[in-house]
Amino acid sequence: MLETISWTGSAVRLLDQTRLPAETIYVEITDERQMWDAIKRLVVRGAPAIGVAAAFGLFLGVRESSANGNDVDAFFQRLAEVGAYLKSSRPTAVNLAWAVDRVTRIATDARPGNATLSDIRQRMLDEAIAMLEEDRAVCRAIGEHGLSLLEHRADELGVVHVLTHCNAGSLATVAYGTALAPIYVGVERGVRFHVFADETRPLLQGSRITAYELRENGIPVTVLCDNMAAAVMQQGKIRAVIVGTDRVAANGDVANKIGTLSVAILAKYFGLPFYVAAPTSSIDLSLPTGREIPIEQRDPSEVTHGLGRVTAPLGINIYNPAFDVTPNDLVSAIITENGIVTAPYIAGLRTVVRGV
Amino acid sequence: MLETISWTGSAVRLLDQTRLPAETIYVEITDERQMWDAIKRLVVRGAPAIGVAAAFGLFLGVRESSANGNDVDAFFQRLAEVGAYLKSSRPTAVNLAWAVDRVTRIATDARPGNATLSDIRQRMLDEAIAMLEEDRAVCRAIGEHGLSLLEHRADELGVVHVLTHCNAGSLATVAYGTALAPIYVGVERGVRFHVFADETRPLLQGSRITAYELRENGIPVTVLCDNMAAAVMQQGKIRAVIVGTDRVAANGDVANKIGTLSVAILAKYFGLPFYVAAPTSSIDLSLPTGREIPIEQRDPSEVTHGLGRVTAPLGINIYNPAFDVTPNDLVSAIITENGIVTAPYIAGLRTVVRGV
Repeated sequence: MLETISWTGSAVRLLDQTRLPAETIYVEITDERQMWDAIKRLVVRGAPAIGVAAAFGLFLGVRESSANGNDVDAFFQRLAEVGAYLKSSRPTAVNLAWAVDRVTRIATDARPGNATLSDIRQRMLDEAIAMLEEDRAVCRAIGEHGLSLLEHRADELGVVHVLTHCNAGSLATVAYGTALAPIYVGVERGVRFHVFADETRPLLQGSRITAYELRENGIPVTVLCDNMAAAVMQQGKIRAVIVGTDRVAANGDVANKIGTLSVAILAKYFGLPFYVAAPTSSIDLSLPTGREIPIEQRDPSEVTHGLGRVTAPLGINIYNPAFDVTPNDLVSAIITENGIVTAPYIAGLRTVVRGV
Repeated sequence: MLETISWTGSAVRLLDQTRLPAETIYVEITDERQMWDAIKRLVVRGAPAIGVAAAFGLFLGVRESSANGNDVDAFFQRLAEVGAYLKSSRPTAVNLAWAVDRVTRIATDARPGNATLSDIRQRMLDEAIAMLEEDRAVCRAIGEHGLSLLEHRADELGVVHVLTHCNAGSLATVAYGTALAPIYVGVERGVRFHVFADETRPLLQGSRITAYELRENGIPVTVLCDNMAAAVMQQGKIRAVIVGTDRVAANGDVANKIGTLSVAILAKYFGLPFYVAAPTSSIDLSLPTGREIPIEQRDPSEVTHGLGRVTAPLGINIYNPAFDVTPNDLVSAIITENGIVTAPYIAGLRTVVRGV
């Protein structure tokens, strides 16, 4: 499989997803500013991958502060600044804040002891590397659980036709992905899948990234424009919808790439299950409902100029939110690494997150 | 207003809509092959405009047959060939066939009399010019009827926020448009409108053409990607949806630009009226339901290469139907030049088409 994100020993190596599908180019990130920019520009994207990237970014932001010698206060002040800075790159994905907070806690916990700043930096790096490995295991577990929901939905020719939106595949994570994990795990076991990939305007993560990674991995895929999903469902060609998420509220409302709400409403209209693959790191129990999830507004030029040609009159009003919120009553199940949650979501989500 | 289509005395002048919004360029069409190509490539598009264009195209296809002198049989054979050829340019819009048949009938009706071929050609041209004028009047009448449905739907600031898909505006007709006609007529009367325009992938008629013509005419417009309409509706910012159509079946099923079905389902989910503006020339009583409407499949490259940059892996499967069919139970009303039809549609559509 392609490596989305890896640690070279001195830098973070990212597959530059803004160049896909035309070019497979890697970039090396050596400081927190480069990482902020990589997250902001979607060089690295997908909530789980952003989390791991931010964990490394936090380490990169303080590894150079050795000039301060053993000035512990200055180190922790810088740590807090870098953390806040990295969190500002994209506001909707809770994994980003979760990852920054987790690595910050490793440093903070070490402070009262005898750890030197050098020790603390090493522990932060170790934690980021551990998160990278964990992400792989989490996605694999989501794949196992998700497969149990999908594998019996084959058509008369034995193929499970699934629609997905945006990219919640291996390129949104370290490996396997979230929404696509059941497909990768299923294919390993001989289940036959065919994926309809919404192209996902404005940045086309579906046609550029989902189609690219599925084809690289030998899985049949058909790209369609976002507005075509209803027609394909009307023809009975789709058996289930599965998407990823950037943040799930305590009541099961789901923030995900703009257009997800539309797909969820269509699935309900056509009687199809609508599944959300969500590592527990993307579940935010502190938010009662999806109304409290901040929705990032992005630059209008992504809509008007994003494809190499001007596609709207100059200066026209553009609405360009990056995400929407799907209410929990449109969600058939939320698939986590710790199991599958169905309505009512409040108790079930608490259980998979806290283990009780 | 911009002139979509006009007769120069010797050629048909078309605004080249493939160049919008960057360039306002007119092309002159002097034979039926150029017209077939202009319709196929969407230089001229929109069912009513295609109808008028095809009427002129039929005349252009037989005006040069004077080399045959008075060989009447050869003339009518050529007329039939040119008609079939023009109809093959785009299969879904019934106006195209309707217009070709109407001009063919003018010629056929003249045959038994004393008309010379020169007379017949002149009558065909007169008919095409009459159709051009009629189209303007039909759209104006649709505007009057449609306005009665929309004008009372203003928000607390006195603005009627309407969503439309694709372009059924003045550039899809000779003037006024169909779906946008109520807006143009309303603005003349002081009604305040704001239009949300779906960009309408893959060819972006919404962002390229609807946004362009509304702005040229001073009407506030906001472009959004097709997958954003649900989020805007969820926020309560849209009061009604109005679209055009390429063909309405006898039961009120509506074929229109791909993505219309999706918008109709969203409107139902959010409790918004979904209106279809349909000149009676687009109502095909010969088809019992929408299932019988042929759906044009277009070239995959429109999805992958249509915007100046390759946006999907080379050779990937692409689904690219030009239209979808919205079932009649999702349609709140069909607005024709002869009045507004609501469910049950069978009797109502027959009345507006046949006048009984």
